[in-house]
Amino acid sequence: MSDLLMTLAKNPATAGIVKKLGLPNPVELARAEGGYQARPFAGKTVLLARSRNGYAADSLLASIEEAGAAPLEALQENSRERVDIVVMDATGCASPADCRALYDVFHPLMRRIARNGRVLIVAAPPDEAQDAVAAAAARGIEGFSRALGKELGKDGITVNLACVARDALDRLAGAVRFFCGVQATYVSGQVVRITAQVAAPAVLPFAAALKGKVALVTGSARGIGRATAYRLAQEGAQVVCLDVPGAADALHQACSEIGAIPLMMDISAPEAPHRLAEFFKEKFGGLDILVHNAGITRDRTLANMKEHYWDMVVNINFAAIAAIDEILLAEKVLREGARIVCLSSISGVAGNFGQTNYAFTKAALIGYVAAQAPKLASRGICINAIAPGFIETAMTDDMPFMMREAGRRMNSLKQGGKPRDAAELIAFLCTPGAYGISGATIRVCGQGLIGA
Amino acid sequence: MSDLLMTLAKNPATAGIVKKLGLPNPVELARAEGGYQARPFAGKTVLLARSRNGYAADSLLASIEEAGAAPLEALQENSRERVDIVVMDATGCASPADCRALYDVFHPLMRRIARNGRVLIVAAPPDEAQDAVAAAAARGIEGFSRALGKELGKDGITVNLACVARDALDRLAGAVRFFCGVQATYVSGQVVRITAQVAAPAVLPFAAALKGKVALVTGSARGIGRATAYRLAQEGAQVVCLDVPGAADALHQACSEIGAIPLMMDISAPEAPHRLAEFFKEKFGGLDILVHNAGITRDRTLANMKEHYWDMVVNINFAAIAAIDEILLAEKVLREGARIVCLSSISGVAGNFGQTNYAFTKAALIGYVAAQAPKLASRGICINAIAPGFIETAMTDDMPFMMREAGRRMNSLKQGGKPRDAAELIAFLCTPGAYGISGATIRVCGQGLIGA
Repeated sequence: MSDLLMTLAKNPATAGIVKKLGLPNPVELARAEGGYQARPFAGKTVLLARSRNGYAADSLLASIEEAGAAPLEALQENSRERVDIVVMDATGCASPADCRALYDVFHPLMRRIARNGRVLIVAAPPDEAQDAVAAAAARGIEGFSRALGKELGKDGITVNLACVARDALDRLAGAVRFFCGVQATYVSGQVVRITAQVAAPAVLPFAAALKGKVALVTGSARGIGRATAYRLAQEGAQVVCLDVPGAADALHQACSEIGAIPLMMDISAPEAPHRLAEFFKEKFGGLDILVHNAGITRDRTLANMKEHYWDMVVNINFAAIAAIDEILLAEKVLREGARIVCLSSISGVAGNFGQTNYAFTKAALIGYVAAQAPKLASRGICINAIAPGFIETAMTDDMPFMMREAGRRMNSLKQGGKPRDAAELIAFLCTPGAYGISGATIRVCGQGLIGA
Repeated sequence: MSDLLMTLAKNPATAGIVKKLGLPNPVELARAEGGYQARPFAGKTVLLARSRNGYAADSLLASIEEAGAAPLEALQENSRERVDIVVMDATGCASPADCRALYDVFHPLMRRIARNGRVLIVAAPPDEAQDAVAAAAARGIEGFSRALGKELGKDGITVNLACVARDALDRLAGAVRFFCGVQATYVSGQVVRITAQVAAPAVLPFAAALKGKVALVTGSARGIGRATAYRLAQEGAQVVCLDVPGAADALHQACSEIGAIPLMMDISAPEAPHRLAEFFKEKFGGLDILVHNAGITRDRTLANMKEHYWDMVVNINFAAIAAIDEILLAEKVLREGARIVCLSSISGVAGNFGQTNYAFTKAALIGYVAAQAPKLASRGICINAIAPGFIETAMTDDMPFMMREAGRRMNSLKQGGKPRDAAELIAFLCTPGAYGISGATIRVCGQGLIGA
């Protein structure tokens, strides 16, 4: 456990051992315990940096103010004041010379961002740029932000980039709250595209954000699924927790903690989609949030993989999800404005030794959400995937020590994430305020080194 | 040097030391010495696997036959015959069930692909799929191929994926020759999109592929630039080698080896674009191949980076390239059917600690080629970028031992690449036969672990 290591590192009697292992002492990451607050930035020092000809600063200012802070435009040079949140409007950076603003803004800030601080850079979408140089400049900001994340990560600071076109500026508020909020604990080095494809919901509650919503989380007896169910319930959702009959005890325990309804089912059974459709129609008249968390691994090199290991993984991790969505969408069980989140994986992004089956399915989900998004936009439905990196669960506890330590450390934050961190990203994508994001796969990996 | 390690590992007296270091003994990678051959697959065992409803197999068959081999459709079960090249038409894989073909084809092959073998999977483009499930299946193949590359890499086998739509099937031949050829030594885990945006050249020579072409390689006194100049000259191009005056001796030496013309110039000087335009107009009436290899690093954390370190890197690595292209394109110095290749970097893909400036510029080039490609397609011009991973050069020789060994090993082939490997990818992208590829960034990194 990374917690154990942190405890050892903090204890003067054992700190030397940790040091000898050559492992850096990771910063203690800030995490929320409760649900969203209406004014989460209240009491925080926020800096909003503008760039010449930028078009997002006013929207960003409004979002920051609505979240409870009056942002500064610059820090006083001789003070030692720390800043908790830095937001930069870089949408005006359309040439190599314009991009000097990145240096000018961040160079003087580098030693003045507080631990567990947040950086959000907002750029123009490269593929909508007027000319190739402007596209290059916009795309260059992605490389800059990733490098910045690697430099700031040791202090628990996350750096993310939102690409937003002029027609989607009204959709920035949700992204600002999440990527600048405590909830972005383990989300760093990401690029999220904010688009106008999905219409705005009638109401945009930021606290108790899921009140009145019905949510299904598959595979929620344990781990990320359980943390997600818990998190959705915190936001006021009525949660249904699904898992296989073999996990009944854990499932009931999870449900009793949060007033959720247990549902025991094998999602890959042929009758599962119709059973789910009937259950939600009868019980709630529909479904608002669907988190496809259930998934299995059956790791073997392809040389040694029996065919049923291939089939099982494909059926549960991919075919079952497609079959369930097909029915729930066709029968309109998933209501207008619904949110679907699929659990992909770093293995799906980059492939992994011994996981040809798993990597296939988790990559498939990346393509699946990208292709479904435009089809579902007219119904106000957003569909996205998250790709967890090293998240501390029973699965990672079973890894050999050295492999576990390596996996845990190979990211900008120098530690593993917790199921809650993945749950925070999922919960955000399930909120009405995330309506600017659909078709995306976002990693929750502490800016893991491993990639494609 | 990785060579040193390999020598030590092979020597019985020192092999034990290498073993104790815990470093796997990397396979000796096959590399070409000469230029392209007309029938490079002659004498090789090639297997062409079809999938139900696939549309690319006939084109693949024609490409393989033209390259000198009569492919098998399956291996004999009880023989121990090895296969050198596996090509799979997976364009028919449009559902989870269809994708079982991936298992069925590769499971029995896993122990039968020869060292330094090549795998090329051809899939449908996910974003052109008829429905979301087909898109998911197509995208899933990417995850599968990356996992496969990680399993096969220790034997020097590369695995790549080409996504091709029906309207671009006639453009597969070049990709088949490169990705299944010895030249793909250090290119693995890549996905390349073959499109119909650029019209076919009048002639498609596969040997002496650049005869009659005029090429400019910037920064070619040493390293990848020099290897590229050498490689282009091998294919028959008249090469002009450009470098800064300070590198005059090395530049002249490089040129004398290959009959190239030296050109001493600072590409970031304001007059450079016009000087280049005049030079090529006067001397050759135009330019066919432009390799933007020149680039610098000035590494510092952003906290410690002086502003001229930012400016220098941005000016040379990004602004100079844009300025040169602007003039050479506007004045039509770059002829119809020209090829432009930019040198990006893994730092541009993933960001890197201490390289905010460099990562910005190398990411910018990824956006630049993507945005230029559609604009230049009507002139028959292709523009692409390559992103080298750990390539053994003077720069990597200067790295601290442990960092160098780690960088070298963190890829599927368990070793660094050579400048020639990058030059092979660049040379391929400069050939007429690569006309199906434009706007892409392809990594030459041995399927490096590090990603975005």
